[in-house]
Amino acid sequence: MDCVYARRFDVAVRRGLASDQPRELSTWIGNRRMLLITTPTVYRLYGEALYRKLLELGVDVTVHVAQLSERNKTLSTVANICDVAAVAGLGRRDVFAALGGGVCCDVVSVAASLYRRGVPYVTIPSTLIGQIDAGVGIKGAVNANGRKNELGCYWPPEAVFVDPSLLRSLSRRHLRSGSAELAKIAIIADPALFEDLYEHAELLLDSGYSEPQRRADALIERAIELILAELEPNCFEDQSYERSLDLGHTFSPRLEERTHYALLHGEAVAIDIALSCRIGTELGWLDPNDSRRILSLLLRLGLPIDHVQLDHRLVRDAIDVTTRHRAGHLNLPIPSSIGSIRILQDAGAIGTEKICAILPRTRPRRERSRLRRVPRELHKSERNS
Amino acid sequence: MDCVYARRFDVAVRRGLASDQPRELSTWIGNRRMLLITTPTVYRLYGEALYRKLLELGVDVTVHVAQLSERNKTLSTVANICDVAAVAGLGRRDVFAALGGGVCCDVVSVAASLYRRGVPYVTIPSTLIGQIDAGVGIKGAVNANGRKNELGCYWPPEAVFVDPSLLRSLSRRHLRSGSAELAKIAIIADPALFEDLYEHAELLLDSGYSEPQRRADALIERAIELILAELEPNCFEDQSYERSLDLGHTFSPRLEERTHYALLHGEAVAIDIALSCRIGTELGWLDPNDSRRILSLLLRLGLPIDHVQLDHRLVRDAIDVTTRHRAGHLNLPIPSSIGSIRILQDAGAIGTEKICAILPRTRPRRERSRLRRVPRELHKSERNS
Repeated sequence: MDCVYARRFDVAVRRGLASDQPRELSTWIGNRRMLLITTPTVYRLYGEALYRKLLELGVDVTVHVAQLSERNKTLSTVANICDVAAVAGLGRRDVFAALGGGVCCDVVSVAASLYRRGVPYVTIPSTLIGQIDAGVGIKGAVNANGRKNELGCYWPPEAVFVDPSLLRSLSRRHLRSGSAELAKIAIIADPALFEDLYEHAELLLDSGYSEPQRRADALIERAIELILAELEPNCFEDQSYERSLDLGHTFSPRLEERTHYALLHGEAVAIDIALSCRIGTELGWLDPNDSRRILSLLLRLGLPIDHVQLDHRLVRDAIDVTTRHRAGHLNLPIPSSIGSIRILQDAGAIGTEKICAILPRTRPRRERSRLRRVPRELHKSERNS
Repeated sequence: MDCVYARRFDVAVRRGLASDQPRELSTWIGNRRMLLITTPTVYRLYGEALYRKLLELGVDVTVHVAQLSERNKTLSTVANICDVAAVAGLGRRDVFAALGGGVCCDVVSVAASLYRRGVPYVTIPSTLIGQIDAGVGIKGAVNANGRKNELGCYWPPEAVFVDPSLLRSLSRRHLRSGSAELAKIAIIADPALFEDLYEHAELLLDSGYSEPQRRADALIERAIELILAELEPNCFEDQSYERSLDLGHTFSPRLEERTHYALLHGEAVAIDIALSCRIGTELGWLDPNDSRRILSLLLRLGLPIDHVQLDHRLVRDAIDVTTRHRAGHLNLPIPSSIGSIRILQDAGAIGTEKICAILPRTRPRRERSRLRRVPRELHKSERNS
């Protein structure tokens, strides 16, 4: 039997569409019921106001506020969301909406894929990483057995509403973390985007991507466009395991697990990209000047490029797990210039030992304790909540 | 963005292919790891022997034996299966296999859809209902919030291995229950299949679908063929909510819930089909002779056609829930002859009151207590285990 499934989704990018001007969103929902899932801080900052506006516009909306972090990104959190949907009486044509960061989008995607064998959902990412990565793809996931994203789904959203004005309240650390994914897509596919980001890094971080405003919006739109173009031919990852978008995502999941998620996703990605550049120059695939320029962008964005836990054991473990995950091949994306990627199919081409040899030596304990002191709040105002 | 997903699956029907001659199965698995999920009784009857033969044939197989019934058809059972897969080191190309009844196939399908965002799986249904229904579709589900199949997925198996010889050990009650789904597909689409089943009902039940052997195999093959043909154009149920295959599946889920699954799925389906026939004659859509013939087949198969809990409240609840589930329309399939279906789009055409009026009156308590005495074991030998 042949089973064919086709979905289409749209991404709208406009300041205000999920804050002061949610008419587009309310039109989209129409007369369906909506379950808006968000976190306490995002609810306080934006969710409550959005909820009231949607009610005024006549949307039949229920709000579910839940703690959603890497630590409770679990199947039981998903089950809770589905319970709430059942109590609110949502049918299979009604809509889930994720208003939050990457974790919120990931968890809601899994919940929407399971509830009544799959209901539509929209994402309204409130973080940079959500707006240009977790919120615009079709992948949902939860952690299990101490493994990041061990369970999940491919379940396309119906629409993505990107409101860059939500980033103003994002903490500097989370702006940096999101910028790592922006840097990633620039390194993969677009030298002009790279230069733009390089030039405006400081102002973008200082202003929460609200200045220079037109430039910031254009950067976000361009990143989304590039990501969708990369995703489209292989969005279920059933055509190929050689994915440029996996740049920065080979060693980083293990680093996140090993630090018990003290390291943010984008920080781990930056460290992984830096290692991939070192491997690239070692292989002779990447010009050392380009490598330096990439590391320099990461540093300009305030991102780490090394970590005390990035040791031989972690590298071997990551290579093993990834090779299994990518069906027998490592398929490590390596920058071959700013704007292009080559895939290292097998670790054998360079040798695990060689990769380990180019790791920075272990740093003194002092640095380890500094890591713990890094503030972990998502939005600036979380400190006061 | 467009997301297109296409899968194909095959169904093999042959006596012995999951018992004494599993070479076809072992060739299918090839050099991938296999996690065989089964229940204690099926393991004792067939699983252990199959496991040994697969090992002999060089398959890298791990067995997971778990209690799987409607009562623990839950998300946490799914999570357990995924845990076992992780411990056994299964990668995203490795294979889950469900050896068991409908619940086993349903639960494994959900687990396979979630593990590492989806791994391949095969089903080896050991019950009649599994072989001609739950095992051959692409739907998986678990119960939640007291609602049957509240959570689930559409996740096509890679292949289905149907071995009718496994049915020999099935208890008479479960053979009857499975026969209800066989009757359903005959009523929907094939008068010849209907007559065959009518003629051989007793011998098929007495022999565990092993006599008359060629006829039994042909019946099963034909039912599968018809079901796949009905499923194919709308297998994700995204093209239409008017599905002939929903015959017998409108009131029955509520009956199963209300009896706390004391009633088997096929028993509830038979009661639902009988009510649908009564509605059909009431509407003037179904000739009373055809209706009598359908009820007569159900009775010949030893199936119930009424139930003390099928009352006004249940009917109203079922109509509400179904109308919500089928996107605003009841879409009740009604036999319009033996071999064809008409869809009743809205309850209004007949009126919920009218449906309630044709319900049989409540029977004395005696009958209720008889219900409780019906044995619940799946396979005959379960009584001794």
